[in-house]
Amino acid sequence: MTGFLRPESLPLDQQLRARARQVLPGGVYGHMKADHTLPPSWPQFWERSHGPYGWDVDGNRYIDLMCAWGPMVLGYQDPVVEAAAAEQAARGDTISGPSARMVEFAELLTSVIPFADWAMFGKNGNDATSTAIRVARSATGRAKFLKATPAYHGANDWFTPNTTGVPAGERANIGYFAYNDIASLEASVAQHDGEIAAIILTPFQHDALVPQQLVDPAFARRARELATAQGAALIIDEVRSGLRLDLRGAWESIGVRPDMTAYSKAIANGHPIAAVVGSDSLREGASKIFVTGSFWYSAVPMAAGIATVKRAAELDLPAVLKASGERFKQGIEAQGAAAGLPVAITGPVQMPHLSFADDPEMKKVFAFTDAAVRRGVLLHPWHNMFLAAAHTDEVVDEALARIEGAFEELAGLGL
Amino acid sequence: MTGFLRPESLPLDQQLRARARQVLPGGVYGHMKADHTLPPSWPQFWERSHGPYGWDVDGNRYIDLMCAWGPMVLGYQDPVVEAAAAEQAARGDTISGPSARMVEFAELLTSVIPFADWAMFGKNGNDATSTAIRVARSATGRAKFLKATPAYHGANDWFTPNTTGVPAGERANIGYFAYNDIASLEASVAQHDGEIAAIILTPFQHDALVPQQLVDPAFARRARELATAQGAALIIDEVRSGLRLDLRGAWESIGVRPDMTAYSKAIANGHPIAAVVGSDSLREGASKIFVTGSFWYSAVPMAAGIATVKRAAELDLPAVLKASGERFKQGIEAQGAAAGLPVAITGPVQMPHLSFADDPEMKKVFAFTDAAVRRGVLLHPWHNMFLAAAHTDEVVDEALARIEGAFEELAGLGL
Repeated sequence: MTGFLRPESLPLDQQLRARARQVLPGGVYGHMKADHTLPPSWPQFWERSHGPYGWDVDGNRYIDLMCAWGPMVLGYQDPVVEAAAAEQAARGDTISGPSARMVEFAELLTSVIPFADWAMFGKNGNDATSTAIRVARSATGRAKFLKATPAYHGANDWFTPNTTGVPAGERANIGYFAYNDIASLEASVAQHDGEIAAIILTPFQHDALVPQQLVDPAFARRARELATAQGAALIIDEVRSGLRLDLRGAWESIGVRPDMTAYSKAIANGHPIAAVVGSDSLREGASKIFVTGSFWYSAVPMAAGIATVKRAAELDLPAVLKASGERFKQGIEAQGAAAGLPVAITGPVQMPHLSFADDPEMKKVFAFTDAAVRRGVLLHPWHNMFLAAAHTDEVVDEALARIEGAFEELAGLGL
Repeated sequence: MTGFLRPESLPLDQQLRARARQVLPGGVYGHMKADHTLPPSWPQFWERSHGPYGWDVDGNRYIDLMCAWGPMVLGYQDPVVEAAAAEQAARGDTISGPSARMVEFAELLTSVIPFADWAMFGKNGNDATSTAIRVARSATGRAKFLKATPAYHGANDWFTPNTTGVPAGERANIGYFAYNDIASLEASVAQHDGEIAAIILTPFQHDALVPQQLVDPAFARRARELATAQGAALIIDEVRSGLRLDLRGAWESIGVRPDMTAYSKAIANGHPIAAVVGSDSLREGASKIFVTGSFWYSAVPMAAGIATVKRAAELDLPAVLKASGERFKQGIEAQGAAAGLPVAITGPVQMPHLSFADDPEMKKVFAFTDAAVRRGVLLHPWHNMFLAAAHTDEVVDEALARIEGAFEELAGLGL
């Protein structure tokens, strides 16, 4: 399998990292920082992308199972989406007011998502989650909201996992509970009884560093009941999962509808946009707040979003991704079993998380993903990955063929 | 001058407003909402843009003095910027990590802005201002920051002018002072002595609804002294003014340098990006925080930003805009004087704010801007406007010729 190995060193990437350390604090920051938190083979800087592939600045090609950490869901430079974006860009993008695309995109989202009666747009996933909290507070006149712990919902003062620079008082209005733990949620509701504006939840547990957990339907139903009984808004944060699980909403199949859902990442296949959708009961609360941004009305990402959501509906995208995710999961788990290195894929197969049994210090998963990256498959050691329509059976099979060598290498390390 | 008049009604715009009310809370929200706050002639929905012009969905052309509320600074669809953006888009935009453009843009900004040693990027102006506050808190270990009142710095819980949905406690760490009032700033510093992480200021006073005020250099110098004495960061919010006043920084010519500056809007001529730049003294504080966003690393807006800033330097853009702004100011003030309707242009001429003498209820300015918009010149009754390089002498002169009729109409109303 050594035919798949790229050169060990990435000289242009290293040069750029050195330059970055001069002009970016600590080098690259945020979730895309490679230094210290990712295997040494991970490229920090990327040259180009196409379909299911990314190329690093040194010219090596990867089957990209990160999909830009979620935004790419059809394929990089998807021709249908890019044609819509280019056509709109020729007419206008950031103008002195919105285009008709803003109304059309809101009409499309509220037609695809059964509970949704209105939509608002922003740029960051965090714009969507924090706008949803603002709407809930506006509608209820209450200050508090409840969230699972740790449960990432963005990097603002309320949600960032690193509280450096965040005064404790900034989180005074947040109550906490454990995901999928009904007793914990009930206790948090009881503690803040009558003061709760919202309960915010991801559609499944996708915390970094630990295996993912699907939602327990009984937990989802209890969250719905408690929010309703409290007169609080139930918010689902689908920033990471939108378009991948169920176009109608992640919990539609288990019969649980939220009052608001936050979207971003994939809804325009990589163009920058976020959305909150909500029910009529919150329309007045939403109409009273003031949130805005210089680029929130820009037409190109909305045109791209319309094209992406329509294409997702045409393709039945969640089913497509489920099939390729299942193929990847079965393939890699079989490889791990054969190598005597049992590997688990947790969470929805469309958003797989990789972990090894008996790997408390994560040495195996780091060594394995390091080896996979050197073989041209971009795997992540502690964050969920993402499938896209461009990951055809052939691409998944090529990824698995390359990964075979990573298992061989890991077995040889005797970790 | 009636030859300039567009049709009175905007039927397609009205149809879209009715559709918007069904699927957007209260119709369009935020700073681009036209209903209630802008003259009836203002179009809500825009079809296209080019150079200095925008066209509404009913096909009427306007000389656009709003420049998308700031982002457009060269001209709509500037060929140099769009070529750079298209070239990058063909390679990749939102990928699984940053491109070299991120390093190059940071290198460019730190070379153009003398005090700046590092840069961080976001999407919204608010990302830049709130990241700057986070950095200051990280560096100082303190919670409080001081801001002028009302002083818009974004629409998050700290800064939104409409506090619906914002619990009072969310602003517990903010101290206030009056812009250009040294005694007021000194009193606020004394009140929060030793607890201050940052003082944040716009480079001139550009609050909505009232005439603009240039900064008093003595006030700027005193703010610098007080921040230094407190060990606090001085942050200038150039989100609105960036690239229009001075490429080196708005207060460079008066000898006052901040510790951090927030940029967004114009720095990529309409492509969505924001930046904080800072000095070495804050580098470590900046490197310790966790802020991020799904689209913060996207390459196209960075390629557009590099092209925009380089073009601005080549053109000496602030000087170009100052000349056209001066031409507009002198022209419109002369017209007002001749019509017996003295009009004042306040603030930097590159970002003019329009107001009439003896107009306490703003009836004159609403009627006048309404008449100007019907004559194909997009003027704003209570927010500053923006000049761009595309506003050549010929375009400014055509705007003034059209505005002549608006003065005649206003004179006829006898307000």
